Amino acid sequence: MVKLVAIYRKPEDVEAFDKHYFEVHAPLAEKMPGLIKMEVSKIVGSPAGESDLHLMAEMYFESKEAMMEALSSPEGRASGKDLRGFAGQVVSMHFAEVV
Amino acid sequence: MVKLVAIYRKPEDVEAFDKHYFEVHAPLAEKMPGLIKMEVSKIVGSPAGESDLHLMAEMYFESKEAMMEALSSPEGRASGKDLRGFAGQVVSMHFAEVV
Repeated sequence: MVKLVAIYRKPEDVEAFDKHYFEVHAPLAEKMPGLIKMEVSKIVGSPAGESDLHLMAEMYFESKEAMMEALSSPEGRASGKDLRGFAGQVVSMHFAEVV
Repeated sequence: MVKLVAIYRKPEDVEAFDKHYFEVHAPLAEKMPGLIKMEVSKIVGSPAGESDLHLMAEMYFESKEAMMEALSSPEGRASGKDLRGFAGQVVSMHFAEVV
Protein backbone atom coordinates (compact mmCIF):
# COMPACT_ATOMS: atom_id res chain seq x y z
CA MET A 1 0.00 0.00 0.00
CA VAL A 2 1.27 3.49 -0.84
CA LYS A 3 -0.03 6.93 -0.04
CA LEU A 4 0.18 10.45 -1.32
CA VAL A 5 0.70 12.71 1.69
CA ALA A 6 -0.19 16.40 1.58
CA ILE A 7 1.15 18.42 4.51
CA TYR A 8 -0.26 21.92 4.87
CA ARG A 9 1.47 24.56 6.97
CA LYS A 10 -0.70 27.15 8.72
CA PRO A 11 -2.33 29.38 6.07
CA GLU A 12 -2.71 33.14 6.60
CA ASP A 13 -6.50 33.00 6.43
CA VAL A 14 -7.51 29.77 8.15
CA GLU A 15 -11.24 30.26 7.63
CA ALA A 16 -10.96 30.86 3.88
CA PHE A 17 -8.51 27.98 3.56
CA ASP A 18 -10.77 25.51 5.39
CA LYS A 19 -13.81 26.58 3.38
CA HIS A 20 -11.99 25.99 0.09
CA TYR A 21 -10.33 22.81 1.30
CA PHE A 22 -13.45 21.06 2.56
CA GLU A 23 -15.97 22.43 0.05
CA VAL A 24 -13.89 22.40 -3.13
CA HIS A 25 -10.53 20.68 -2.88
CA ALA A 26 -11.24 17.51 -0.90
CA PRO A 27 -14.23 16.61 -3.14
CA LEU A 28 -11.95 17.04 -6.20
CA ALA A 29 -9.19 14.89 -4.69
CA GLU A 30 -11.70 12.19 -3.77
CA LYS A 31 -12.59 11.79 -7.45
CA MET A 32 -9.14 10.44 -8.35
CA PRO A 33 -9.43 6.97 -9.91
CA GLY A 34 -7.95 4.15 -7.84
CA LEU A 35 -8.20 6.07 -4.56
CA ILE A 36 -8.81 3.48 -1.83
CA LYS A 37 -9.09 5.74 1.21
CA MET A 38 -8.54 9.39 2.07
CA GLU A 39 -7.77 10.42 5.64
CA VAL A 40 -7.80 14.10 6.51
CA SER A 41 -6.50 15.28 9.89
CA LYS A 42 -6.50 18.67 11.55
CA ILE A 43 -3.30 19.48 13.41
CA VAL A 44 -4.28 20.78 16.81
CA GLY A 45 -0.95 21.23 18.57
CA SER A 46 2.34 19.59 19.42
CA PRO A 47 4.11 18.38 22.55
CA ALA A 48 6.08 21.67 22.42
CA GLY A 49 2.89 23.78 22.28
CA GLU A 50 1.80 25.15 18.93
CA SER A 51 2.46 23.32 15.66
CA ASP A 52 3.50 25.04 12.43
CA LEU A 53 1.20 22.66 10.55
CA HIS A 54 -2.51 23.06 9.88
CA LEU A 55 -3.78 20.00 8.04
CA MET A 56 -2.64 16.68 6.67
CA ALA A 57 -4.30 14.58 3.96
CA GLU A 58 -3.34 11.02 3.11
CA MET A 59 -4.59 9.37 -0.05
CA TYR A 60 -4.09 5.61 -0.22
CA PHE A 61 -3.54 3.59 -3.39
CA GLU A 62 -2.85 -0.08 -4.11
CA SER A 63 0.56 0.58 -5.71
CA LYS A 64 2.91 3.33 -6.82
CA GLU A 65 1.74 2.76 -10.40
CA ALA A 66 -1.89 3.29 -9.38
CA MET A 67 -0.91 6.50 -7.53
CA MET A 68 0.97 7.83 -10.55
CA GLU A 69 -1.92 6.99 -12.87
CA ALA A 70 -4.32 8.79 -10.50
CA LEU A 71 -2.13 11.91 -10.47
CA SER A 72 -1.93 12.06 -14.25
CA SER A 73 -5.64 11.36 -14.77
CA PRO A 74 -7.98 14.26 -15.65
CA GLU A 75 -9.30 14.15 -12.06
CA GLY A 76 -5.77 14.18 -10.64
CA ARG A 77 -4.74 17.08 -12.84
CA ALA A 78 -7.85 19.06 -11.87
CA SER A 79 -7.10 18.44 -8.20
CA GLY A 80 -3.46 19.46 -8.67
CA LYS A 81 -4.44 22.65 -10.48
CA ASP A 82 -6.86 23.57 -7.70
CA LEU A 83 -4.21 22.79 -5.08
CA ARG A 84 -1.62 25.08 -6.65
CA GLY A 85 -4.19 27.85 -6.79
CA PHE A 86 -5.31 27.92 -3.16
CA ALA A 87 -2.44 26.24 -1.28
CA GLY A 88 0.70 26.40 -3.43
CA GLN A 89 2.48 28.46 -0.78
CA VAL A 90 1.69 26.23 2.20
CA VAL A 91 1.59 22.64 0.92
CA SER A 92 4.25 19.98 0.50
CA MET A 93 3.48 16.64 -1.18
CA HIS A 94 5.20 13.34 -0.53
CA PHE A 95 5.00 9.78 -1.83
CA ALA A 96 5.08 7.20 0.98
CA GLU A 97 5.17 3.42 1.28
CA VAL A 98 3.31 2.03 4.24
CA VAL A 99 5.68 -0.33 6.07
CA MET B 1 -10.00 9.43 16.86
CA VAL B 2 -6.76 11.35 17.34
CA LYS B 3 -3.19 10.63 16.37
CA LEU B 4 0.31 11.55 17.35
CA VAL B 5 2.24 12.22 14.15
CA ALA B 6 6.03 12.02 14.04
CA ILE B 7 7.58 13.47 10.88
CA TYR B 8 11.27 12.67 10.35
CA ARG B 9 13.41 14.68 7.95
CA LYS B 10 16.24 12.87 6.15
CA PRO B 11 18.89 11.87 8.71
CA GLU B 12 22.60 12.12 7.93
CA ASP B 13 23.16 8.39 8.35
CA VAL B 14 20.06 6.69 6.95
CA GLU B 15 21.26 3.16 7.67
CA ALA B 16 22.03 3.82 11.34
CA PHE B 17 18.78 5.75 11.71
CA ASP B 18 16.65 2.96 10.24
CA LYS B 19 18.38 0.33 12.34
CA HIS B 20 17.68 2.25 15.54
CA TYR B 21 14.18 3.23 14.47
CA PHE B 22 12.95 -0.24 13.56
CA GLU B 23 14.91 -2.28 16.12
CA VAL B 24 14.71 0.00 19.16
CA HIS B 25 12.40 2.98 18.81
CA ALA B 26 9.30 1.56 17.13
CA PRO B 27 9.09 -1.34 19.63
CA LEU B 28 9.29 1.20 22.48
CA ALA B 29 6.58 3.41 20.97
CA GLU B 30 4.34 0.40 20.42
CA LYS B 31 4.34 -0.27 24.17
CA MET B 32 2.45 2.95 24.95
CA PRO B 33 -0.80 2.18 26.78
CA GLY B 34 -3.97 2.97 24.85
CA LEU B 35 -2.27 2.80 21.44
CA ILE B 36 -4.86 1.53 18.97
CA LYS B 37 -2.79 1.43 15.80
CA MET B 38 0.63 2.56 14.62
CA GLU B 39 1.28 3.21 10.94
CA VAL B 40 4.84 3.76 9.79
CA SER B 41 5.55 5.00 6.26
CA LYS B 42 8.77 5.47 4.35
CA ILE B 43 8.86 8.60 2.23
CA VAL B 44 10.10 7.60 -1.20
CA GLY B 45 9.82 10.83 -3.19
CA SER B 46 7.56 13.67 -4.12
CA PRO B 47 5.86 14.99 -7.26
CA ALA B 48 8.74 17.49 -7.51
CA GLY B 49 11.40 14.74 -7.32
CA GLU B 50 13.17 14.19 -4.02
CA SER B 51 11.46 14.76 -0.67
CA ASP B 52 13.16 16.33 2.34
CA LEU B 53 11.36 13.80 4.55
CA HIS B 54 12.47 10.28 5.42
CA LEU B 55 9.81 8.64 7.57
CA MET B 56 6.42 9.28 9.11
CA ALA B 57 4.84 7.49 12.07
CA GLU B 58 1.23 7.86 13.12
CA MET B 59 0.04 6.58 16.47
CA TYR B 60 -3.74 6.42 16.91
CA PHE B 61 -5.62 6.84 20.19
CA GLU B 62 -9.28 6.94 21.14
CA SER B 63 -9.17 10.52 22.46
CA LYS B 64 -6.82 13.40 23.19
CA GLU B 65 -6.94 12.42 26.88
CA ALA B 66 -5.82 8.88 26.05
CA MET B 67 -2.97 10.26 23.91
CA MET B 68 -1.80 12.58 26.69
CA GLU B 69 -1.95 9.75 29.24
CA ALA B 70 0.09 7.56 26.91
CA LEU B 71 2.74 10.25 26.50
CA SER B 72 3.11 10.75 30.23
CA SER B 73 3.11 7.03 31.05
CA PRO B 74 6.44 5.31 31.85
CA GLU B 75 6.36 3.73 28.38
CA GLY B 76 5.65 7.09 26.72
CA ARG B 77 8.46 8.78 28.62
CA ALA B 78 10.90 6.00 27.71
CA SER B 79 9.91 6.35 24.06
CA GLY B 80 10.29 10.15 24.21
CA LYS B 81 13.71 9.88 25.83
CA ASP B 82 14.87 7.46 23.15
CA LEU B 83 13.46 9.73 20.43
CA ARG B 84 15.35 12.79 21.64
CA GLY B 85 18.55 10.75 21.74
CA PHE B 86 18.58 9.40 18.20
CA ALA B 87 16.29 11.77 16.26
CA GLY B 88 16.02 15.04 18.20
CA GLN B 89 17.54 16.95 15.28
CA VAL B 90 15.30 15.57 12.55
CA VAL B 91 11.89 14.92 14.10
CA SER B 92 8.81 17.10 14.55
CA MET B 93 5.80 15.88 16.52
CA HIS B 94 2.18 16.94 16.03
CA PHE B 95 -1.21 16.21 17.60
CA ALA B 96 -3.92 15.61 15.00
CA GLU B 97 -7.66 15.01 14.98
CA VAL B 98 -8.87 12.69 12.25
CA VAL B 99 -11.74 14.48 10.46
